[in-house]
Amino acid sequence: MGRLSAALLGATGIAGQQFLPFLAGHPYFELKVLSASARSAGKLYIDAVKWYQEYYIPNEFVNMPVISMEEALEKADFDILFCALPSEIAAEWEPKFAEKGVTVFSDAGCFRKEKDVPVMIPEVNYDHINLLTAQRKNRNWKGGIVKNPNCTTVAAAMALAPLKKYGIKRVFLSSMQAVSGAGYDGVPSMAITDNVIPYISGEEEKVEFENLKILGDLDEAEGEVKLLPAVFSASCHRVHTLYGHIEALFIEFEKEVDIDDVKNSIRNFTSKPQQLGLPTAPKVPVILTDDPFRPQVRLDRNAGEPERCKGMSATVGRVRYDHDEKNRIKLITLAHNSIRGAAGNLVLTAELAKAEGLI
Amino acid sequence: MGRLSAALLGATGIAGQQFLPFLAGHPYFELKVLSASARSAGKLYIDAVKWYQEYYIPNEFVNMPVISMEEALEKADFDILFCALPSEIAAEWEPKFAEKGVTVFSDAGCFRKEKDVPVMIPEVNYDHINLLTAQRKNRNWKGGIVKNPNCTTVAAAMALAPLKKYGIKRVFLSSMQAVSGAGYDGVPSMAITDNVIPYISGEEEKVEFENLKILGDLDEAEGEVKLLPAVFSASCHRVHTLYGHIEALFIEFEKEVDIDDVKNSIRNFTSKPQQLGLPTAPKVPVILTDDPFRPQVRLDRNAGEPERCKGMSATVGRVRYDHDEKNRIKLITLAHNSIRGAAGNLVLTAELAKAEGLI
Amino acid sequence: MGRLSAALLGATGIAGQQFLPFLAGHPYFELKVLSASARSAGKLYIDAVKWYQEYYIPNEFVNMPVISMEEALEKADFDILFCALPSEIAAEWEPKFAEKGVTVFSDAGCFRKEKDVPVMIPEVNYDHINLLTAQRKNRNWKGGIVKNPNCTTVAAAMALAPLKKYGIKRVFLSSMQAVSGAGYDGVPSMAITDNVIPYISGEEEKVEFENLKILGDLDEAEGEVKLLPAVFSASCHRVHTLYGHIEALFIEFEKEVDIDDVKNSIRNFTSKPQQLGLPTAPKVPVILTDDPFRPQVRLDRNAGEPERCKGMSATVGRVRYDHDEKNRIKLITLAHNSIRGAAGNLVLTAELAKAEGLI
Amino acid sequence: MGRLSAALLGATGIAGQQFLPFLAGHPYFELKVLSASARSAGKLYIDAVKWYQEYYIPNEFVNMPVISMEEALEKADFDILFCALPSEIAAEWEPKFAEKGVTVFSDAGCFRKEKDVPVMIPEVNYDHINLLTAQRKNRNWKGGIVKNPNCTTVAAAMALAPLKKYGIKRVFLSSMQAVSGAGYDGVPSMAITDNVIPYISGEEEKVEFENLKILGDLDEAEGEVKLLPAVFSASCHRVHTLYGHIEALFIEFEKEVDIDDVKNSIRNFTSKPQQLGLPTAPKVPVILTDDPFRPQVRLDRNAGEPERCKGMSATVGRVRYDHDEKNRIKLITLAHNSIRGAAGNLVLTAELAKAEGLI
Repeated sequence: MGRLSAALLGATGIAGQQFLPFLAGHPYFELKVLSASARSAGKLYIDAVKWYQEYYIPNEFVNMPVISMEEALEKADFDILFCALPSEIAAEWEPKFAEKGVTVFSDAGCFRKEKDVPVMIPEVNYDHINLLTAQRKNRNWKGGIVKNPNCTTVAAAMALAPLKKYGIKRVFLSSMQAVSGAGYDGVPSMAITDNVIPYISGEEEKVEFENLKILGDLDEAEGEVKLLPAVFSASCHRVHTLYGHIEALFIEFEKEVDIDDVKNSIRNFTSKPQQLGLPTAPKVPVILTDDPFRPQVRLDRNAGEPERCKGMSATVGRVRYDHDEKNRIKLITLAHNSIRGAAGNLVLTAELAKAEGLI
Repeated sequence: MGRLSAALLGATGIAGQQFLPFLAGHPYFELKVLSASARSAGKLYIDAVKWYQEYYIPNEFVNMPVISMEEALEKADFDILFCALPSEIAAEWEPKFAEKGVTVFSDAGCFRKEKDVPVMIPEVNYDHINLLTAQRKNRNWKGGIVKNPNCTTVAAAMALAPLKKYGIKRVFLSSMQAVSGAGYDGVPSMAITDNVIPYISGEEEKVEFENLKILGDLDEAEGEVKLLPAVFSASCHRVHTLYGHIEALFIEFEKEVDIDDVKNSIRNFTSKPQQLGLPTAPKVPVILTDDPFRPQVRLDRNAGEPERCKGMSATVGRVRYDHDEKNRIKLITLAHNSIRGAAGNLVLTAELAKAEGLI
Repeated sequence: MGRLSAALLGATGIAGQQFLPFLAGHPYFELKVLSASARSAGKLYIDAVKWYQEYYIPNEFVNMPVISMEEALEKADFDILFCALPSEIAAEWEPKFAEKGVTVFSDAGCFRKEKDVPVMIPEVNYDHINLLTAQRKNRNWKGGIVKNPNCTTVAAAMALAPLKKYGIKRVFLSSMQAVSGAGYDGVPSMAITDNVIPYISGEEEKVEFENLKILGDLDEAEGEVKLLPAVFSASCHRVHTLYGHIEALFIEFEKEVDIDDVKNSIRNFTSKPQQLGLPTAPKVPVILTDDPFRPQVRLDRNAGEPERCKGMSATVGRVRYDHDEKNRIKLITLAHNSIRGAAGNLVLTAELAKAEGLI
Repeated sequence: MGRLSAALLGATGIAGQQFLPFLAGHPYFELKVLSASARSAGKLYIDAVKWYQEYYIPNEFVNMPVISMEEALEKADFDILFCALPSEIAAEWEPKFAEKGVTVFSDAGCFRKEKDVPVMIPEVNYDHINLLTAQRKNRNWKGGIVKNPNCTTVAAAMALAPLKKYGIKRVFLSSMQAVSGAGYDGVPSMAITDNVIPYISGEEEKVEFENLKILGDLDEAEGEVKLLPAVFSASCHRVHTLYGHIEALFIEFEKEVDIDDVKNSIRNFTSKPQQLGLPTAPKVPVILTDDPFRPQVRLDRNAGEPERCKGMSATVGRVRYDHDEKNRIKLITLAHNSIRGAAGNLVLTAELAKAEGLI
C-alpha cells in the first residue's frame, strides 16, 4: 500500500521551507514535486533556495529539481498539494489544481470565509474536514481546498477547544506575535528592536472570524459550519521574538465554571488525531502549566513529543478567575506560529484527511 | 522667593538616578541632599554611583557628597524628599521623615492603599493632592506622604482620564512592559531575549486597584477617595524593550459613545498642571495619533514638549469601536515607565503640591 | 552677510532624514530645497516621508514641498548640495550638479578613490579640503564634489589621528557594526536577532583604503593625497545594535611608544574645527575613557557637546600595550555611524569649506 | 563490561544542567550522583533546579536526589566526576576528590596553568591527556584533574589546529561572545540590549595562554606541554547573542601558505576522537563554509552530526589572504560556547580518557 504523492508550491520561500522536515520520510505522503516561481524553476532545490533555517535541508530534497507552477499544473500527477504561496497568488492557482483533481492543503489566507471550505486544526474541529465532501459536490471538483487558519488564530483556538463545552460567551484576545509571522523580510530590525508595533494589518479580523468558525459546529445537511455564537475581540501586536505567538485571553462564559474543572479539561484534552495515532499528532496537544511564569515563548514554543512533533503542542498557563467572577477566567496561550500555525498543522490536517478516506 | 530644599533617598540606584535631570536647575526645588545606603555614604556622588544612563550626570550633582539615610533623617533640614527606595525599606523610613515635618514624594509601592495617601498623576487627579490635609490631621504629621502609582498604571489611567465622563463600566488591560521596570539587574538577557515573560509578580493587582483609586472621586469630607465603580482586569507581561510600557485596552462604557467625540476628548485633554504652567507639565499630556502603526515604544516613549518634558506625554492610538458595539472601544496606550511612570511624574506632583500651597 | 543656500538630495530616505536636525536653523546654511525621487516629488515633505526617527521633523521642513532631482538640477539655484542618495544613483547625478556650479557634499560611496576628491573628517584631515581647488581646475568645474568616508572608516580614523605622529606601521581592525548602517530595510530582524553576520559586502576594502587616504598627507603641488604608508587590514561584522559602530584596533608602530603619552595624545586631541569654532564641531572630538567597560555602544554613541553636537564625538577606551611589546597597542573605538559617520560629519565638512572660503 | 560511574558537581546551575543531555543514556558513563550546594541537598533534582533550557530534563534525572558536596566527597563511590562549579569553589574541592581516587573532568578555570594539568580539546591535543600519568605521579594521586578550556579559547583553537603545521607566528583575535558565557544572571538585559560591552574581565589573558598551551607539544619526558612559540593577542567583547562565540582571526605564518591548501587542511581535518568513534565526537569537527555570510551564530552554533553531537562542530569561514601577503590569512570561527566550549567537550574528553585506558 503505497504513499500518496505530494507537491509543494512555494517551496523555496520561508514558509515553504518549513514543510520539508515534516514531509521528509513521511509514512503517508511522498513529496516528489517542488514548485516555485519562474526564477527558481529549472534549478536544483539547493541552488534555488536561500535557506534560512537552523537545521539542514533534509537530504532527499537537496538535489530535487524545482519546477514552475505552470509545469506543476500541467502535469498535476500528484494526489495532494501543500500550498505555501502568498494569498493573492494562491487565490489564482488553488482552484486550478482542485479542478484537476488535486486536494490542496493550503496555508494561504484566501477562501477561509467560503462556507464549504474547512479551516482546520485537527484536534479542535476534526469533523469539519468532511466539508470537503460538500465542497466537491458544490463545485464539481474531484480535488478540493482545505485551509490552515491564520497563525494567531491557532494559539487561541487550541486553548478554547477544551472550554467550548462550558459555553463561551465573549473572548478578548491580546496577542504578542513573533516577527517570523511576517515572513523573512517582513520586519526590519530597525523596526522591532527595543520596540513593539501595535498593529498588524488585517490580523484582528482574521483571528476574530476564524476562531468562531473553527470552534463552530458542522452542519452536514447544510454543508457549512455554524459559527460559534460568541463575541470575539482581538488586539494584535508584534513584539521582538523570532518564533511563537503568545496571547492573553479574557474569557466570559455563559455561566459559572469551576477553575479546577477548567484546568482538568485543558490538561486532559485529547482528540481524534491522538486516537488515530496520526504521525504528526503530539501526545499532548495542549500542555497545561502551573508555573505562573510559563508559557514563555523561547522555552515553550517547541513543545511537543515525540521528536517529530516538536512545536506541535500549544502551552496554556496562568488559568485563573477574573477577580471573583466565577463566569470569567483569564489565561495565557502559546503556539509555534510556523509549526502548529503553519507547516506542521497542515501536514497533520492532510494526515487526518487520509485517515478519514477523503484523499 | 527662594526655592524649597529637597533631598533624594536612594540617589545612586537606577530609579534614583533618573530624578537628577528633572531636578537639575529646577525653578521650585533645590536638591541639596543625596542619600543612599551605608556603602555609598561618605563618597562623592560620582564615586558612589554606577551610572547607567545614556546622558551624563548633571554637573551640579557630580561632586555632591552622599550621606546615609540615618544622617539624612537626623538632619531633616529640607522641605521635601523624593524617595526612590525599594518598597520594603521605604515602608520603614518614609513615616519617620513625615513625622519630622518633611513631605515625602515617593516612588515606592508601600502605602498606596492607605485611604489618606494620595496616588497622583497630576493631570488625572490633581485634586487628590488635597488628601495631604486629611493625612496630616489623621496622623498628626507636619510632613506627609504622597505616592507615585505603579508605572504600568500610568499609561492606562492617562488614556482613561479623558474618557471617565462617558461612564467606564469595565476595562480589560493587556500590558507589554519594558525590562527597566524591574530595575537594572531585574531581567537577565538570558530571560528576555527572543522571549516574552507572561507574569510580573503583584503587578496585576496594583494596576487594577490603582486605576480605580486614581480615577475615583475625592471625598473631602471623609478624607478619602471613592474608588471608580468599575471593574478593572489586567494581564501583565514583560517583552523585550528597554523603556516604555505599552498596553492594549478593551473598554466597556455604561452607554454608547461617539467614536469621534471620544477621539476629540483625548485630543483636547488638558488639565490643571498645564493651566498652572508647572515646569514639568508637557504641553499635551495625552497625544492622540491617527497612524494605526503608532504608538510604538521606541519612537513614542520620549514624547513631550518642551525639551525638559521629554517622556512626560502618554501617546494613545488605534481608538476604534469593538465590532459594532457602540458602548465598547479598543485602544492602545503608551507611557515612559521611568519618566511619566516614575521620576518625572513625581517631580510634577511636587510642583503641583507647591502650586497648591501644600508644601 | 547672508547664509549660503543649500539643497538636500535623497531627503526622504533614512539617511537624508538625519540631515534635518543638523540643518534646522543652521547659522551658515539655509536648506531651501528638498529633493527626492519622482514618487515623492510634488508632495509636502510630511506627506512624502516615512519618518523613522525618534525625534520630530523640525518645524521648518514639515510643509516644505519636495521636488524631483530633474527639477533641482534644472534650477540649481543653491550654493551647495548635500547628497544622501545610494551610490549608483549619486554617481550619475553628482557631476551634473558640480558642473552647474554647485559644490556637492556627499555621503555616497562613489568617487572616493578619485585622486582629486577629498574624503573628509574635518578634525583628521582638514587640509585635504583644499583638493577642491585642484579638482575644480582639473575638471573645469565651478562647483565640486566632497566626500564623507564610509561610516566604519570614521571610528578608526578618529582614533588613529592623534597617533599618526608615532608612525603607524600596521593596523588590524575588527568591527561590530549597527544595523542602521545598511539602511532602514537593510537587515531583517530574522537575520540579526540572536545573531552576528560576519560579512558586509565591500566594507573591508573601503575601510582599508579610506583610512590610508584620510590619514595620508596632502600633496598640494600634485593635487592629491599621498596614502599613509601603512598596512590596514579589516574584518567587518554586523551585530545587533541600532546605531553606533564599535571597533577593536590592534596597532603596530614604527617604534616604541609610551602608553601614557599615547593616552594624553588622544585625550588632548583637538583640531581646526574646534579652533574655528565651527557650529557642528564638538568640544572634544575624541573622548578618552579609562573605564575598561567603555565605550559601550548604547551609552556612548551620542557623546558630544554642546547639545547640537550629540553624536559627533568618537569615544576611545581600553588603550593598552599588546603584551610587553612597546611598539604595539590595542584599543577600542566607537563613533555614531549615522551622525559622525554621515549627516553630522558632512555638515561639519561644509562648515569647514565655508570657513576656508572654498564655498 | 559495565559503565563507569560518574558524579556531577554543581548539577543545578546553568552550566551543570547542560551536562544532562550528554550523559543521559551514555554508553560509557552512568551518572548516578547529582551534587549541589547545601541549599539544594536533600531535594529531588526537579525540585532543586531552576530549569532554564529549551529542552526537558532527561527522564532519568528528574527524580534523582541531590546530595551535598560534603556527602559526595565522603562517599566518593564513583569513578569520575564532572565539575561545573565556579572557579573559586572548584579550586578547593577538586583536589580533595582527586586524592580520593576520582578523576575530575572540570569546566572550572582553576589549575589550567599547572604544568601537569591537561587542558583538552580532544581533536586538537588528544595526546595531552597523557599528562594525567605525570600528574598522578607528581601528586601521588590515584584520581586526577583534567580541564576544559575557556569557552572563547575553543573556537580559536579548533580553527588553528589544522593550520599548526604551517608554522603559526602571530594571531590577533577579536571575539563577539554570547551572554550565556557569563551565566544565567551574568548579563542584564539593560546591559546588552542594543549594545556591545567591550571588555570581559580576565578573558583575554585566558584565551591567549590557553591557545598556546593547547596548540603546544607534549613533552612526555618532562611531564609538561611546551607552549606554542607564537604570539597570541586577543580583544574580547560581549554582543547580544544567547549562545555561540564567534571570532575574527588575523593569522601570520612563518612562511607563505597556499590558500587552497589551507582550506583543504581545514575541510579535511579529522582526529583521534573520530578515529576512535567516541560517542560525542562529531563526524566533522571543523566545518568549512564557502558562503561569505557564514558562519552565523544562530544558524551555525548547533552544527554537528549525528543528533547527539549537535553543537560539537566548530564552523570556519571567510578564509582569505590578508591583502597580497601570502604568509597572512584572515578567517572567522564559531563554536557553541556551552556545548563545544563546556559540557559537550568535557564529556568527549572523558570518553577519550576512557578509550586511552586512563580511567
